[in-house]
Order: sequence, then structure tokens, then C-alpha cells
Amino acid sequence: MHDLTRSLKQHSDSKIVMLVADGLGGCPMEPGGLTELETAQTPNLDSLARRSVLGGSIPVKPGITPGSGPGHLGLFGYDPLEYIIGRGALEATGIGFELGPHDVAIRGNYCTLDAQGKISDRRAGRISSEESAPLAVRLREVRIEGIEVFVEPVKEHRFVVVLRGPGLGGQVHDTDPQTTGVPPLEPKAGDAASRRTAEVAAEFVRQGCKLLADEKKANGLTLRGFSAKPKLPTYDDVYGLRAAAIAVYPMYKGLARLVGMTIVGKAQTIDEQIGVLESEWKNYDFFFIHFKYTDSTGEDGNFMAKVRRIEELDAVVPRILSLDPTVLVVTGDHSTPSLLRGHSWHPVPTLLHSRVCRPDHSSGFTEREATRGGLGLFEAKYLMPLVLANAGRLGKFGA
Amino acid sequence: MHDLTRSLKQHSDSKIVMLVADGLGGCPMEPGGLTELETAQTPNLDSLARRSVLGGSIPVKPGITPGSGPGHLGLFGYDPLEYIIGRGALEATGIGFELGPHDVAIRGNYCTLDAQGKISDRRAGRISSEESAPLAVRLREVRIEGIEVFVEPVKEHRFVVVLRGPGLGGQVHDTDPQTTGVPPLEPKAGDAASRRTAEVAAEFVRQGCKLLADEKKANGLTLRGFSAKPKLPTYDDVYGLRAAAIAVYPMYKGLARLVGMTIVGKAQTIDEQIGVLESEWKNYDFFFIHFKYTDSTGEDGNFMAKVRRIEELDAVVPRILSLDPTVLVVTGDHSTPSLLRGHSWHPVPTLLHSRVCRPDHSSGFTEREATRGGLGLFEAKYLMPLVLANAGRLGKFGA
Repeated sequence: MHDLTRSLKQHSDSKIVMLVADGLGGCPMEPGGLTELETAQTPNLDSLARRSVLGGSIPVKPGITPGSGPGHLGLFGYDPLEYIIGRGALEATGIGFELGPHDVAIRGNYCTLDAQGKISDRRAGRISSEESAPLAVRLREVRIEGIEVFVEPVKEHRFVVVLRGPGLGGQVHDTDPQTTGVPPLEPKAGDAASRRTAEVAAEFVRQGCKLLADEKKANGLTLRGFSAKPKLPTYDDVYGLRAAAIAVYPMYKGLARLVGMTIVGKAQTIDEQIGVLESEWKNYDFFFIHFKYTDSTGEDGNFMAKVRRIEELDAVVPRILSLDPTVLVVTGDHSTPSLLRGHSWHPVPTLLHSRVCRPDHSSGFTEREATRGGLGLFEAKYLMPLVLANAGRLGKFGA
Repeated sequence: MHDLTRSLKQHSDSKIVMLVADGLGGCPMEPGGLTELETAQTPNLDSLARRSVLGGSIPVKPGITPGSGPGHLGLFGYDPLEYIIGRGALEATGIGFELGPHDVAIRGNYCTLDAQGKISDRRAGRISSEESAPLAVRLREVRIEGIEVFVEPVKEHRFVVVLRGPGLGGQVHDTDPQTTGVPPLEPKAGDAASRRTAEVAAEFVRQGCKLLADEKKANGLTLRGFSAKPKLPTYDDVYGLRAAAIAVYPMYKGLARLVGMTIVGKAQTIDEQIGVLESEWKNYDFFFIHFKYTDSTGEDGNFMAKVRRIEELDAVVPRILSLDPTVLVVTGDHSTPSLLRGHSWHPVPTLLHSRVCRPDHSSGFTEREATRGGLGLFEAKYLMPLVLANAGRLGKFGA
């Protein structure tokens, strides 16, 4: 599809807003009940739905539950089965670490080693974040010739290592043996280009274990998810769009940055995010606005809290519409039903509004209306071509 | 899909009619309004819809607006992203030039050259068709050893050249530099098999410019879209169908001919086209009937004229039904909303009627009903397998 959009893209003064409510889709808690979106009072979205075309976005393929990475890549128009973001790179992205082209990112776990150097606890007794944060600072003392080493704390027993230097491939096997009673594995290269990475990682482990030797719980470490910076073509390249991201959390800023979006503003609330949208309106063609709380409340299994967050989102819709965007899309990267307390595979209710969108029979913005809307069920990766078409930014294919 | 249909096709006495209303799909002109198809009084199609299965045909991929070539290839069951008709071949097809297997078709433009041989106007002052037609006749005086040269006028500054001879590849770069103040480019082969084509084209330009030398506006020419005859498997091969095309305009006759349909009749109106259908009924298995005016009125932005054309089409439906076709499909190659004054990406309302089609909830033939019909949204290339199945012409896959 990117070959198509790249060859057909054309200039336009149109403005596009993609409002992403993370984990938007839901489920009824009881048979015969309503979903979170059906329960919420959403007069603005319902009214907009009657002038829009709706559909159900399938994040990856039917039945496949995505993480945040593939969920957003799909929405951004990048086939999530083709473009894979390695675990280390995603973890680094999630804490706001901006990966460079010569970086290899790795997820680290503290573990407990016994006197024989065998793992007795793979998670170092689930050490608290308060206890583990200073350890990451200590690991920064590792020195490896020709390599810059970054260590950043994550939650509890987790941390991130980034190795920066020439000639580092991203294909190294995990050192976590996934069991106890055995020592951590040696870092082993998965291809010739990653031999140096494996050597550097082994040296990091050697020095790191020395630095941690006196710790009671976290006296060892394992490394997982080695990955280079993913190579994604940019929004400018494939769509001809100057794109801006208005997000609160590092993960979503990072994902947007990977596709060439510019991170704008320092908003902490959805109201502040819309304020940034207003002030940056003239500077970009495309705005990605990320709203986290429909996901986190769903993950908590807190149905009514998710309902209230949806209503909070509904309240800002008029402010967006008053900017008169050429195309406004409201969607999510995946569903997070409170019923499941986690991400799910269900199609995501999606609304596309433009002057030329050809409205359907939809009477409101709900999962049930969306999945029989005029866009039907579609794989998320097709949303961007539809958006570009509605924005007058794609020429004709063939004569 | 062709491997599948080729291996599963089976004989049957069934008769299939595919009625293609070019550019059928539309949009409301105002928010909350009706489309052209919803506005039109179509009692016959509405009644048929209640006994049929409906769907929305996506010509290429979501968001992609096709030209007539890819639009029809999709309907004919040929993946329009796999089978590409070169610009020259399509232009030749559009004026009714029947390409042979050793032909290379080229789009020509007259241009204005200054005293230094540099292009001062890429379109020769948009010379009128009346002025340019005799120039095409003059260019037929070009003589090249071993090559047959055809030159046909098109509209205004455009013409078509067909080079016929052995060993002519279709990969030659355009000679139009896409700018003024520089001379036309030399024809340059894109592959080894096209070196001879480039030499022949250079000789055509040399002699052609001499023949045009005394013209004031059109004293030069550029060549674009070099293309050999596209290689498409035939309807007989992939579907086992003896297929006939009943079309008024050369473009659609040409596209049908490319997939092995026989052009029948000399109808000029839809009533005459149905007359041809009646008289040829016994001679073919499959009939493609092309109705142009739903597209041309849409291109004109003339909503009410398109409405009347749809009603004109509706009026012939009983005559088709009285022939008792096994399968009747009513669809379009793409949408042409009057609102957009051009082709669009919107799904095309599609109706499939047969005794075994399993009807859906549709209450009439409209875009809104179709896109939530029993066929759902589907890529146009899947229509022919559905048609064959409904015609009893496809065996079981696997045991």
C-alpha cells in the first residue's frame, strides 16, 4: 500500500485530525448489557456519527490481540505483520529514549543468583521500583571501549540498556533461560552482523554483575529482546504529510516519532492537548492525538471509570470541529474491554468525518453501529489510505 | 484466484449478465442529503434488490480511486494491482485501435519548439482537435524499414502512435521532459528487449519533426507511455466462458477485447444494447453491458442528470429479467459522485441476483443498503468467482 500511496500522493491544503482513544472498544459486562461506549453519554460523537461513515477497525487480523506497538503501527498505516518493533526498541520507546540509527536496545531484568551463579529468582523477588532505580544508575558505570552505554530504570525488576556504536547488529538471543536453577545464558549472536553486539553484551553482563555483587536480591541480570531501531518510512515519504503528535505518554510519542511525526506541546490533559492542536493548527497537515485513559481504565476492569473517560473525550469534540478539519477520524489502536481487563482482538469502533465521506445508516457512535457501517470491517492499515482519499491527497490509479 | 477458477471451472448452460453502470456510486451533495441512486426512482432495481444479495465493491483497495482501466479489470476479475495496462495501450484501446501481439503503443503530444529546438509549449498551445487531426494523417508518411507505423488523432494536442514489427519491447522512457526551455529527450530503452523500439521511436521523431516543421504551434512532438499489448488470460481460459461485450464507446470495447470478449452489435443506446443482448442470447454464456452516462454526468457534476440516467437504466431491467438470466449483476467500475466531479474510491453498490444467491435484509438498491448487504464490502476482483458460483460454474475445492 505504501508503494501506492507514495506514487499517488498529491498536495492539498487539507487538515487531518486522528483522535485515538487507546483501547476504545469494549464489551458488555453481562449478557444483554451495553458496552462502555454504549453506556457513555456521547452527544457530540453521536451527532457526528450521523454525518460520518463508520466502520470496525481490525488492528492486525481477525482474532489477533495487538500490543500498543502493532496497534499504533496499523493505525498509522504500517502493516503490523511487516513492520516489527523489537521488544527492546519498544521498551526504550516506552520510557522516552530516542533511539539512534546505531543503537541496539535491550530489556534487562534483575535476577537473584545463588552461590553457584545459578538463577534462584528470575525477577529478583519483584524488587520495588524505589529499590531498583539506583541500581540502573550504578550500572551506568560499565565502560566498554568504543561503545556508549545507556541504562535506564523501568518498573520493578526491569531496566533498559542501549548500546550505541558502529557495527552493532540487533540479532542476539535472550540470556534469560526462562527457568531457575541454571545460570543465565551467554549472549549469542543470531547473525554475523551481531557478533560484536554479543561480545559487548557479554562484557556488560560481566561488569554489571560485579557492580551488583553485594546486592541481596538483585545480584544478577538477564538481557532480552535485543533490537535495533526499526526502519520505518516516514509520513512525509509515504503520505506527503507534515505530521504532528500530541501525546502525554512517552510510548505514544515514541511510536509517533518512529514514523517521522514531530512531537508538539507538553500537554498533560486532553484539554491541554486540544489547546496544543489549536496553537499548532497552521504548522502541520496531520495531527495524531493520543488519549490514554480509555485503555488504562479498561485494563483496571473499571467499567464506569472507562465510561467517564469516554464522556471526557466526547466533550472535546466540538473544539476540534470548530477548527474545521478536512478529515476527522475517531478510533482506537485496539479494544480494551473492562470485562477482559486487557487488550483484545475486537474490531475498534471508527468514525471518519469529511465533506465527501458518504454517510451511512449510523445513528450513533457505538461498536454495534460501527461494525455495520459504510466502511465495514477493515484492517487498520487501510485507514490511512481512506483518510488521504477523503482529504483529497491521493490521485487516480491508472487512466 | 485465476488458478482457482481455472481448476474449478465446470460447464453449465447458465447465462450471466453483468450490467455495468460506469461511475454508479455517488454521494449526497449536502450533509444529510441523498445520493444520486437514492434520489432516483428505481422501482425495478429496488424490487430486484429485495430478492438479491447486495454488497459494496472496492475497485482496487480502500481509498484508492481507479481509472477506467483498473476499474474494469477488477470487475472482470483481474487483480488491477497485478495486471497493469500501460498508458499507451490504454490510449490506443480508448480510440478503438485493436493492438496486436507485436505492437508498441505510445501516447504522442504535439509541442511547440523554438528556433533552438527547445520546447516553448508542451501542449502546442492546446491546439484544437480540428487543427490537430490532419497532422496525424500527415505523420502517417513516416517510413521505417521493417516497421508498420500507425498514427491516430486523439483530442486536442494528443495522438497515438503504434509501432508494429518483430522484436519491439515496450520499455522505453518518455521523451517529454515535463518542462519547457529544454529540448525533448531522446527515446531511451528501459531494457535490452526495447533497444530496437527506442531506435525506431527516434527515427519516428526525426521524420515526424520534419513533416511538422512548417507548423506554427505544433512543430514538434513528444512520446510518452510506451507500452506493449498487455498480456491478460482470456475469459475462456480462466472462467470457461464464451463472453460477449455490448458497449457503445471504444474504450470499453477495447478493455473487453483485452480479456477475450467478443464485441457484438453496433448499439448506440441502452435500448439498442438490450436489443443486441436479446438477439445474441443463444450465442454466449456471459454478457458485459456497459452504460457510460452515469459516469459522464457525474464527471460533469450534474446530479440530476445522473439521477435521470440511473432511471433510464432501471427501465431496461425488466427486459433483461424476461430473458431469465441465471445470474444478473448490476454494479459499476467505480463511483463518480457528482459532488466530486470525478472518479472516487467509494465502494460501488453491487447487486447479485440468482436463484441461489441467499438474499439479505436489503430493502432497495442504494449505496447505504449495499455496503451492509450480504456480500459485505469486497474487492472487485472477487465478484467474478461469486458470479461463477451462482451460475453453477465452479466445482468444489478439495474433497
